[in-house]
Amino acid sequence: MSRDLKDITMENVAIERKPHDALALLLGTEMAAVDGLIRDRMASDNAPRIPQVTAHLVEAGGKRLRPLLTLAAAKLCGYDGPYHVHLAATVEFIHTATLLHDDVVDESAQRRGRPTANLMWDNKTSVLVGDYLFSRSFQLMVETGSLRVLDILANASATIAEGEVLQLTAAQDLATNEAIYLQVVRGKTAALFAAATEVGGVIANAPESEVAALRDYGDALGISFQIVDDLLDYGGSSASMGKNTGDDFRERKLTLPVIKAVALADANERAFWSRVIEDGVQKDGDLEHALGLLAKHGTLAATKADALGWAEKAKAAITRLPDTEIRALLIGLADYVVARVV
Amino acid sequence: MSRDLKDITMENVAIERKPHDALALLLGTEMAAVDGLIRDRMASDNAPRIPQVTAHLVEAGGKRLRPLLTLAAAKLCGYDGPYHVHLAATVEFIHTATLLHDDVVDESAQRRGRPTANLMWDNKTSVLVGDYLFSRSFQLMVETGSLRVLDILANASATIAEGEVLQLTAAQDLATNEAIYLQVVRGKTAALFAAATEVGGVIANAPESEVAALRDYGDALGISFQIVDDLLDYGGSSASMGKNTGDDFRERKLTLPVIKAVALADANERAFWSRVIEDGVQKDGDLEHALGLLAKHGTLAATKADALGWAEKAKAAITRLPDTEIRALLIGLADYVVARVV
Repeated sequence: MSRDLKDITMENVAIERKPHDALALLLGTEMAAVDGLIRDRMASDNAPRIPQVTAHLVEAGGKRLRPLLTLAAAKLCGYDGPYHVHLAATVEFIHTATLLHDDVVDESAQRRGRPTANLMWDNKTSVLVGDYLFSRSFQLMVETGSLRVLDILANASATIAEGEVLQLTAAQDLATNEAIYLQVVRGKTAALFAAATEVGGVIANAPESEVAALRDYGDALGISFQIVDDLLDYGGSSASMGKNTGDDFRERKLTLPVIKAVALADANERAFWSRVIEDGVQKDGDLEHALGLLAKHGTLAATKADALGWAEKAKAAITRLPDTEIRALLIGLADYVVARVV
Repeated sequence: MSRDLKDITMENVAIERKPHDALALLLGTEMAAVDGLIRDRMASDNAPRIPQVTAHLVEAGGKRLRPLLTLAAAKLCGYDGPYHVHLAATVEFIHTATLLHDDVVDESAQRRGRPTANLMWDNKTSVLVGDYLFSRSFQLMVETGSLRVLDILANASATIAEGEVLQLTAAQDLATNEAIYLQVVRGKTAALFAAATEVGGVIANAPESEVAALRDYGDALGISFQIVDDLLDYGGSSASMGKNTGDDFRERKLTLPVIKAVALADANERAFWSRVIEDGVQKDGDLEHALGLLAKHGTLAATKADALGWAEKAKAAITRLPDTEIRALLIGLADYVVARVV
């Protein structure tokens, strides 16, 4: 692989900065256009509560990872039209809408370090403003005039909703296995990552092989991202307790470390998991006991290995695209996602 | 206007049957195809709860008025392709999704005479299955391959969500005037009626004048329909009490009869409305007192006149289309909608 001086410089930048910060810097003009479009389209002359709620969410920031992925994919495929900005705003709107609805579903009190919209206003507002953002995202993608883009995002939306319902029914059920977990993760996280990168390639009219590679990258990156999130909830790769350790345990969510431990459980251990997850009867010391079982069966290490495997798949996929500074940053991003638990 | 024998026969049918029943009979083959498509697309292999919830809703029936309007509009414009069926299923999915989300917002216990999904399952399920139906509707419309149809339905979706949020903030606020009421009604009801008829014309490649007439018909019919609903909540055109009289009053919703009465209120009456609607302090006899004020200012009669005016606008609009049996039934439908309070 040959690299010119500019690539090497960018790689140094990527080492010093977090890869998504380096991407945001490299795509600064486009990201500013995305922010402008988001501010413009989240407005509503008729219903002033809408911009209040959306401003609350948008000002809270967040990494804007999904729109960055769309812009990066389009630029990586040599796109020079205006519509990657629309698509980047589209995926951020879809993401924000799902956050609003998730907060109702999870009865969350905090999101991005601020009170959630359903706490500041009410559940009704979260549901309806979420619907508004979905329809705004839909308008934005129609403006691109690409039926293929619409098809991809319609399918992603259905996968997201299906995954959320599946998660609802799979929760608190010890029969949830790794295949179901993967389906849930694809729905709740990977579907939008994959659509975000795929539409970038499609709008750039990239060859089918590149579009497929971008989709595979987004899918694997999203899965890796979510597995790491679930792993961090149990303190990361070692069974140590952080300040947020055990939220999923207390909410009786079956995530990968527990699913693996249940699969290896003896009768006593199974009775424990059944009590704390299925029956929801939790006592002092149960989280510590659970962490002990994860350690005994090595499921945190196994979960970490899975996350690393998906990050490798993401890197292998994106390597099928031309060797540019953006590609290097996307490879760096896959490494960065799992670096949180390495 | 010349009418052939077949038209006259259909008009007789329309007189004997309710107009939407006559339409359903006339469009029986297409409606069966719509039902089949709805059953097919509401399924989900991955999340079995989805078909449980949607079956609960779809089996409950309802008049299927919106898909009938789409089929009727397309046939009226001479369409002979397959996609009016997709669009009819699309509007029914959007309608069902908004019902699911409305039930969360209104905390309703009954819908179409059966327990609501949020009572049988929970709010989470209503939110997420609603999202699923929205994305399914989106997939269906993408299949038609018409960007113009997508544009119309994206705009309708945004208007619906905006109207719902506006209703939320306008509720319990005596400053709500007739202009705001009309905006809310356009959002919650007329936007989908108008889109349902407009896309029928668009998919049939009808001349612009006919597409506009269909849109105007759906808009006016929807407004008339909603005003009549709000009027019936106060017992219809006379201030008499039926078994459901006063639901909107108890929920402190500002609908047209009350908005008109508030505009004509003296200081004492204003204080009454402020207490029962804004402060939500309601006592025995308040509903009877409210009905007395509506009667005193003649606002039920004025509201009825508005509903009749919108029905006339609907009939004038559809009369711009060719004189056929379907047109006669659509005219009959506009009369039927207001006949509930005449």
